[in-house]
Formats: sequence, C-alpha cells, structure tokens
Amino acid sequence: MSDPAAPGPPAIDAARVLADLDALAELTGGPGGARRVCWTEEWQASRGLLRERLGEIGVEDVEVDEAGNLWARLPGADRDAPALAVGSHLDSVPAGGPLDGALGVIAGLGVLRAWASATDPPPRDLVLIDFADEEGSRFGRSLFGSSALAGTLEPAALEGLVDADGRTIGSVLAAAGVELGRAPEARRRLGGIGAYLELHIEQGPVLAAEGSSCAAVSGCAGVERLRIDFEGHAAHAGTTPMGRRRDAGLAAAELALAVERIARAHGGVGTTGRIDLDPGIITAVAGRAAVAVDLRHPEAGELAAMLEETRAAAAVTAGGRSCSHSERPIWRIEPIPFDDALVARAEAAAAAAGGRAAAIASGALHDAAELARVIPVAMVFAASVGGISHAPDERSTDEDLAAAIAAFGELAGAVLAAARS
Amino acid sequence: MSDPAAPGPPAIDAARVLADLDALAELTGGPGGARRVCWTEEWQASRGLLRERLGEIGVEDVEVDEAGNLWARLPGADRDAPALAVGSHLDSVPAGGPLDGALGVIAGLGVLRAWASATDPPPRDLVLIDFADEEGSRFGRSLFGSSALAGTLEPAALEGLVDADGRTIGSVLAAAGVELGRAPEARRRLGGIGAYLELHIEQGPVLAAEGSSCAAVSGCAGVERLRIDFEGHAAHAGTTPMGRRRDAGLAAAELALAVERIARAHGGVGTTGRIDLDPGIITAVAGRAAVAVDLRHPEAGELAAMLEETRAAAAVTAGGRSCSHSERPIWRIEPIPFDDALVARAEAAAAAAGGRAAAIASGALHDAAELARVIPVAMVFAASVGGISHAPDERSTDEDLAAAIAAFGELAGAVLAAARS
Repeated sequence: MSDPAAPGPPAIDAARVLADLDALAELTGGPGGARRVCWTEEWQASRGLLRERLGEIGVEDVEVDEAGNLWARLPGADRDAPALAVGSHLDSVPAGGPLDGALGVIAGLGVLRAWASATDPPPRDLVLIDFADEEGSRFGRSLFGSSALAGTLEPAALEGLVDADGRTIGSVLAAAGVELGRAPEARRRLGGIGAYLELHIEQGPVLAAEGSSCAAVSGCAGVERLRIDFEGHAAHAGTTPMGRRRDAGLAAAELALAVERIARAHGGVGTTGRIDLDPGIITAVAGRAAVAVDLRHPEAGELAAMLEETRAAAAVTAGGRSCSHSERPIWRIEPIPFDDALVARAEAAAAAAGGRAAAIASGALHDAAELARVIPVAMVFAASVGGISHAPDERSTDEDLAAAIAAFGELAGAVLAAARS
Repeated sequence: MSDPAAPGPPAIDAARVLADLDALAELTGGPGGARRVCWTEEWQASRGLLRERLGEIGVEDVEVDEAGNLWARLPGADRDAPALAVGSHLDSVPAGGPLDGALGVIAGLGVLRAWASATDPPPRDLVLIDFADEEGSRFGRSLFGSSALAGTLEPAALEGLVDADGRTIGSVLAAAGVELGRAPEARRRLGGIGAYLELHIEQGPVLAAEGSSCAAVSGCAGVERLRIDFEGHAAHAGTTPMGRRRDAGLAAAELALAVERIARAHGGVGTTGRIDLDPGIITAVAGRAAVAVDLRHPEAGELAAMLEETRAAAAVTAGGRSCSHSERPIWRIEPIPFDDALVARAEAAAAAAGGRAAAIASGALHDAAELARVIPVAMVFAASVGGISHAPDERSTDEDLAAAIAAFGELAGAVLAAARS
C-alpha cells in the first residue's frame, strides 16, 4: 500500500482534459455527433491530434501494434518493473457521443502529462493505449484491439465480414496498415504490462439518478443473447374465433413481459428490443414471431438462472398457445469481475473525489473486460446525464467529469506508488 | 312464402359447378394459387370463360357497367317484377385460393343454368353479377364494384392511389374500359333488383370445426381498425436498470394481450398482427412502438365497448410505463346485418341441405355487405378446410361444396317463388 508520508501523485489538469476533448470534438465531432468510426480518415485524424499532444508533452515512444492499437510510453524510474497501462478508445459509433471512449484516452493523456511535468518520473513505465475498434460499428466485431491483446481474437472467424459498402474487413484494415491475420501478434506487448486502468462514462442512468459524480466499477456483466422463434398459425383477423387461434405474436408478447419479470426478480437486466411478426399485417393473426432476448447480470449463477427461466417461460408460453418454439443462440459472454485489490483502490479514489463509495457493475462491455482476462484491471465511471449513450447528446457535467478525472489520477498514482512499495 | 304444393326449384348441377371451377383454376390458377387480380389480363381471361359458359346456356344479355361489374340476365316470366340477383367476384388476391369469390360466381352461373334448362322460365328476371375488384389487392380499396352499386364509392378519394408499379388507379381502370369518375353511375342498375344472394366460402374455421357443411350468414361484423403509438425512451440494454426504463415495446406487448382479453370478454375478435419497435435492435430498449389493432363484432354496441376498452387499456398501459401514447384511426365500418326474412330462408335452406340450422356472423366483408345497405341480402357459407383463406391451399371438401350449392339453389328458388306468391 502507499506510504502515507509520501507526497501524493501529480494531479491531472482536468481543465486541460476538457479542452482537449473540445478540440477533439471540433476536429471529428460537433452537433451531429462524433464521426470517429474506426479505420476511417476521421478516426486517423483523431489519432493525429493525440500524437500532436503526446509530442507537446515530450512522449516520443509512440507505436501502433499489429492490431492497430496505439501505444504511447512515458519511461519510469524502474524500466524493468511491469508498466501501468491506462487508456480506452478514440473510435466511436457513427453520430456518437463526445465522451464514449474519448474521455478515457484523453484523461489517460492527462495522467501522462501530469507525470511528464512532475519533478520525478513515474516509479515505473506509464503506458497509454488507444484501442482500435472498440465499437465494432463497421464490421459488427466489438473490442477488436483489446481482444487481440487478450488472445480472444480469431482472425479466421472475421474474414467474411464486409462493411455496408461491401468492403471486406481485410481490405479495410490493410488500408489502415493492419494485417488481419497478424493482429493476434499484438498480444506479446501485454507481457510488460502489470495492470490496466480505464476511465469511461457510465452510459447508464444509475450515478446521475443518485447524484453521484463517479464510481469504481466492479466488473462487466455477463451477457446471454438469443433469439426465440414461435410458430403458430397465420389466420384471418376477421374470421378466426379467439378460441381457435394459435397466435405467435401473443406468445412473443407474453415472453417479452416474462423476460422483464425474470430480470427484475434476479436484479439483472433483460431486454426484448426486437420483435418480428409474420406476416406482420393488421388483418392477419401472426403465424410466426421472433423475439430477440438480451439478458445481463454481473454474477454467473444469476445469469444462468435468468437464461433457464427465460427458456422455461418460452416453453410455457408456446404450450399455452399451441405454438411450437425454438431457440437460436446469438452471442454470450461470461461475467468478467475486475481485480479485487484494484477495485478497492478505485473505490477509495472515487470516494476521495466525492463520488460513490461502493463500486457498481457495468452493464456494457469495455476494453477493460478483455484485458481483465489476462491482467489485473479496474475502471472508474463518470456519471452520464440521463444515461444517454451512443448519441450526439451524450454528456456529463463538467463537475462530474472533474471529479471522475481526479479520482482516476488518484487511482493511477496509488497503483504506481503501490508498485514502488 | 312458397307454396308447399308447388314443384321445387330446378336443382343446381353441383358436379358441373365443380367442373367449371376446375376449368377456371386451369385457366387462371393452379398450384401457385389464383392469379385473377382485378383489371389484369388473367382476370379478363376468367371473365372470358364466364361469358363462354353463359353463351352455352343461352344467356345473351351480358353487360359490363360503369364500375366494371359484369351483369348477365336470364329473363323471367314477369319482366316488370324486381329481379333476383346472385353473384360474387372472380377477382382474387395474388396467389389466392380457388374458391374465394369464384365459388359464388360459378354457383350463380349454376343457378342460371338450372333455370335456363327448366321447362318454365324463372318467375322474374334472374341476374348474375360478377363484381369488380372485391379484393382491392392492387390499390387497397376493397369492394370497389359493389360499393359503386351501394353509393358508397367516392372516386375523388381514390384518385391518388397507385399500384406497386406506380400506375394510377385511373389509368389502370381506363385500360380496362372503366372511367373512374363515372363508376358511381352503375348505381342506377340496382333499381331493378329486388334482392341479392351470395354463396361464399367461410374463410374461417367455425363450420369445419363443428362438422357443418354450410350455414346461412346473419350479416357482416363491424370493424374498428386503428393504430396505437407508444413513446417511451430508447436506452442501452445493458446499462439501464429495469426500474428506470420507459419501455414502449413492453407497453405494446401489454396492449396486445389486453386486446385479446377484451375480444374474448365481448365474444368478438381482436387482433394485433403488426407491432413495430423502434429502434428495433437487440441491444436497445424500444423507445417507440406502434401496435396495429383490428377489432370486430357483429353488434354495434359490443364493438363500441371493445373500442373504448382498448383505448382505456392503452392509456393504463402507457401510464404504468411512463410512456405517452396516441391513437390514429385507420378504417372503420359499422356492423351490417342482413335481411331477417332472407336470412331465415337461408337458414331453412342450409338445414334442408344438411348444414347448420342457425346463421353465423361473417367476420370478413363481402360484396353482399355493400348491397345490404340498399336492398335485402342474404348469404350462404361453405365450410373452409382449416379455415385457410387468401392462400393457394384454400379449399372445401366436395361434399361440403355440394351441400352448400344445394342450399344456395334451394334458397334462390325459394326467393323466386316467394316473389311469385
């Protein structure tokens, strides 16, 4: 633990972080939202701004790895000790918010700036990582760069992906200087990293609703994503008595409400944001219905129970309406808890900055979740106004950002100091 | 009423009706379904077959009116008495069934054939009407020809309609020899008609389920068609706690189930065959949802109550989920009861043919419903196997068709005889 007698870590200049975010928005965002879709010229322009700022603070060791992640390294006093990495992603969804990803990269830049201008170097190397294609907006594969570091990226499984213009992922990455098949080689760079810290906006309403500026994050919830299909019998809306219907649409409606009940009962979240009826016309009972189900919970046992209860509800609903049903898995990821000791440090830092004392779980995935598979990780969340995310009007108040940035700087300093002790 | 001592009406040759239906299917239908969409060449071809058959039985008075309806007249003994009209429509939906509409026209031809070959002429003129565009498949306006006769067709309201190829209704009708603006002039022809009878398939499962071959129809149910829009708040499926959601999709699900309950409680039918969620993706709580509602009941009071309860359910559901809601009417028609005396005759004829003794209400609309606004009308339904309709596998058993055709011939004879007494 840190020595109480030692001087605190150099504070991040929060005003400077906000100014850099403004400059980034001016270059690659604005009223229509962020335009930093990965691999595009505007995304490259945002990295150009980052490189410019790194140059201004004297960080010269800047490289892009085999997966397209940008690494900037500020040498520490002990070059052999495992480095501390901070970061997030500059890439955005189309018409995205100004903070999603960018906050973590620019605040990470702020940590490097603070240490670069301090009297002493950091106790060990301090590394900023700007991950490539966290959003996966263009090819549908999120967490591209961080999964390459974590060893979970399988290039062969991505080879068929094309963007909306029909360009293959391989050709788009090649144009950006990344060879898809070699992306997993980036993993070796993680060998020198001892821990990873990330600041991100919450993208949800919890902190703002309770009036908290920031909080530590305990981990990322696990996700079960599946599609349930009901098959009944399409029939004339006027001539088919209620008692003789096999209405797949009503089975879908019942399942949607059951998913809500199940999520509430387990303290998780469950969503049925897409329901497709067939034939889908006002004059016909739906003969087929497909319900997309997204279940999340930070605890594996609870998530498994939610999935089982959803399956049982689908079976009961189908049976009650003389429909058949089937299930198609779409995607799943287990809950990823962060490092207990680092989370405890993050809780202390958030509390010290006036934020929430206890960590909250993240319902969304982050680059930190991939890295948590292989090294100790923690995150800090800044409150999102109204929980709005992936939209141009995503924002946090300056006060909440300042508190979150202060907590993040304190956390980074504490982790660096702990390594020294 | 008919004189019990008088000889019965000449029986329709049911086998000949089935043979004519087969010939029609061979010409304009087949395994892919009926292709008699109104105003097309194949529809004209089906009328060519009808004209050929009318010629064979010596019916020479065949005309097409201003709305495109075909009239064939077999002169009766008393040319000044109001005529009896029988008929239905040869036009079909794309890939439609072999019987929907065609059964009534070809059975009507059978009635004319029976009387044309009888010793005596019918007591009064016997008219076969093949209505134009009952289905409205191409321009979305059902009951075109029959509404022109009933005086409910407003050409000005149709002028903007275009088909899927972008052709205007005016140009398409003109190519078929019909001037849209003059279609209402067809109404004057109804002046000489004393009653109208129509044989049709049920298009629903009621008769087949109870083992009845045929039944009289008491009238057509009224319809209230509307769209209910819910507006909540789109939100991230992972980061938005259940308690903070304003899920418009779940409001839609609750309304769909409420419509089912309401329809059952009133003995009507209620359908929500189309539900649209926005943004409609698996990772987002639906911020908006639109539910298409179709309510039907043969009694106006019950239908009005169903509509009011649906509106109340929408308001309660929206309120419970902090959503706003709005309503947009789509279409409505009041219940149209048929003529009591004619329905009683149809019930007797159905019972005599081994069918159901009591009339049933029609949940679908028919040309008879338009004519019922202005002259006495009754219908006979033939059982539909499985209630399948508007599909190539729509069918009735030969036995049920024979019973229905016999009942229809008996009914037509009874009405003609009553006119004589």
